[in-house]
Amino acid sequence: MKISKLAQVSPRARLGENVSIGPYTIVHDDVEIDDGTTIESHCVIGCPTELADGKSLKIGSNSLIRSHSVFYAGSSFGSGLRTGNRATVREKTVAGDGFQVGANAEFQGHTTIGRHVRSQSGVFVPQGTQIGSFVWLLPHCVLTNDPHPPSDVATVGPILEDFAVVCAMACILPGVRIGYGSVVAAKCLVTRDVPAGVIVAGVPARVRGPVEEVRLRGRNGMPAYPWPRHFHRGYPPDVVETWIRRFGEADKEGSPT
Amino acid sequence: MKISKLAQVSPRARLGENVSIGPYTIVHDDVEIDDGTTIESHCVIGCPTELADGKSLKIGSNSLIRSHSVFYAGSSFGSGLRTGNRATVREKTVAGDGFQVGANAEFQGHTTIGRHVRSQSGVFVPQGTQIGSFVWLLPHCVLTNDPHPPSDVATVGPILEDFAVVCAMACILPGVRIGYGSVVAAKCLVTRDVPAGVIVAGVPARVRGPVEEVRLRGRNGMPAYPWPRHFHRGYPPDVVETWIRRFGEADKEGSPT
Amino acid sequence: MKISKLAQVSPRARLGENVSIGPYTIVHDDVEIDDGTTIESHCVIGCPTELADGKSLKIGSNSLIRSHSVFYAGSSFGSGLRTGNRATVREKTVAGDGFQVGANAEFQGHTTIGRHVRSQSGVFVPQGTQIGSFVWLLPHCVLTNDPHPPSDVATVGPILEDFAVVCAMACILPGVRIGYGSVVAAKCLVTRDVPAGVIVAGVPARVRGPVEEVRLRGRNGMPAYPWPRHFHRGYPPDVVETWIRRFGEADKEGSPT
Repeated sequence: MKISKLAQVSPRARLGENVSIGPYTIVHDDVEIDDGTTIESHCVIGCPTELADGKSLKIGSNSLIRSHSVFYAGSSFGSGLRTGNRATVREKTVAGDGFQVGANAEFQGHTTIGRHVRSQSGVFVPQGTQIGSFVWLLPHCVLTNDPHPPSDVATVGPILEDFAVVCAMACILPGVRIGYGSVVAAKCLVTRDVPAGVIVAGVPARVRGPVEEVRLRGRNGMPAYPWPRHFHRGYPPDVVETWIRRFGEADKEGSPT
Repeated sequence: MKISKLAQVSPRARLGENVSIGPYTIVHDDVEIDDGTTIESHCVIGCPTELADGKSLKIGSNSLIRSHSVFYAGSSFGSGLRTGNRATVREKTVAGDGFQVGANAEFQGHTTIGRHVRSQSGVFVPQGTQIGSFVWLLPHCVLTNDPHPPSDVATVGPILEDFAVVCAMACILPGVRIGYGSVVAAKCLVTRDVPAGVIVAGVPARVRGPVEEVRLRGRNGMPAYPWPRHFHRGYPPDVVETWIRRFGEADKEGSPT
Repeated sequence: MKISKLAQVSPRARLGENVSIGPYTIVHDDVEIDDGTTIESHCVIGCPTELADGKSLKIGSNSLIRSHSVFYAGSSFGSGLRTGNRATVREKTVAGDGFQVGANAEFQGHTTIGRHVRSQSGVFVPQGTQIGSFVWLLPHCVLTNDPHPPSDVATVGPILEDFAVVCAMACILPGVRIGYGSVVAAKCLVTRDVPAGVIVAGVPARVRGPVEEVRLRGRNGMPAYPWPRHFHRGYPPDVVETWIRRFGEADKEGSPT
């Protein structure tokens, strides 16, 4: 265990084996950090809030939280959590293994997140969002939850089904459902539900066709989707195995390293 | 008064009663912080800049500045200022009571802001913007002030009149005026002045109708605007009273908690 | 030299004359900081990463890195680097003199940047981007590098030629080239190459005409572009001289202060 002398770690926090805490990081009282996890410098971990209803913050094993990140009390994360610099995750976020949070990304809490969800820089996810497994959120996409702000009634987050991909700068309106494996193109505005397996684009977004019609550049016209057929980087072997059974696998030339 | 031993607070800063300063926060010389205000950890308060013309930073009573925020010298705020994590507010910002600044939001200064303005995560407000009272800026909306960047001439910020609502990811071009109580829909680009009491949407934004035509979801068709008729959360009783006189109030079913 | 006692500076870092390091800033081992450079508080300078291939971080003379910024190992910057608060610049960024990085902006590294490039708040620049000299990136514009995320093949950043201007909230798709001196209007989506000397706007962006047709507001119809004819603020005299020879200069009334 390597706790910086310049960190401020509560004696009540429960730290596993081989946990590292960087300088100028604050770890509050009711925090559990599992074995092998690294918290870099300048973070606030377990920031108290009444909205957490007294629940602790649990961070799974072998996680990496980069500098200047803020995690509020009352959330739980599986193993292999990984963030960029300045991630913000508020209370009542419940995420499975392998969750990635991009630099400057913000999750406002009260959100369920499946396994191996990867979000990138600057994404914004409001309260009440439901995210399945293996979902991608590309840089600076924004989800919303209030159909007529400001209001108290009817705030409802979007629902992203498994394997959905939301591209850069896309915006998804409240309560909209993105179907299994569908792709929301860059910079579009999604105003209504998107069925499974299609690509949508435009402002407002319209269905442009089945995802299989998008071709990988420079790969002899191999389909780019479903993406698990050719993209495996960083996923655990058992996950990749289920993908190969479900989706098949790209041929040698198409297979990623 | 609870000043962390790990903070660096100038002896020249003037702190009121019951002021809290978190660890790793810097409070510079010429800063006045009123009674009951909390500054969390990792902040920079009163950051010196020549652009402040030697003016101090004044933060009103009962304010809450969350961690990693940066406030420059030369601004002043009424009571009840409240920020998310990593707010940035530069010099010569003059804001009334109840100003809220979202996480990762940036106000570039030289801006006047009325009472009870609420901005959310990731908003960007350039120099020279004029904001009335009771205005809402939803996540990741961006205001601009240079009609043909880069230039020195004719930079002019937008003007947001009282009760205006700018929704998520909207962009407002330089000098554009958003009229009293109007609503700028999500992700639209506002290229010209918007009259009072209408909703605009699209790229470029067009008037879609009077705001009263937007209906609250799940409220028997009750109008969503003017919003002060049904949304009062967190506003002081005397403010709400004036709203009820001016706009009326939603019936029991429609009234917020 | 003025190194805060509250900073953590590696004895192996090489600091020039008159270098200032603010409180709560970390300077890692393999960092070279040239004369007259100021690093403000709460920064992480030379953050180690395997992706840097063991290369050091070099920061040129007379630079200013504002608070809460993070610079990874393995990059190099000319003199006069200047950032806003919370800039993030990752490994293998190679930038010439006078590079400006806006507040909350993120450069993901593996990027070449010419001389006197100015980026503003919240911009996002992915790996593999190529940026010429005298380029402007206005607030919250987003560049992308994966044509069908997630994928390993064919990721390719945009190419911005000299004097290009990318306005607020614009989005540029992977591999797209923005020609010499062209202007990408606010909030547009650039899906294909833009030739030199034109302005593009819309979603998707279309050519609207030669840049010379854009007129400076309040300047008797003087063209706004090429911008070096009327905007010189902060550029070194020798650079401005070459501009005057190449582009001519605005008359007295049009000349900037």
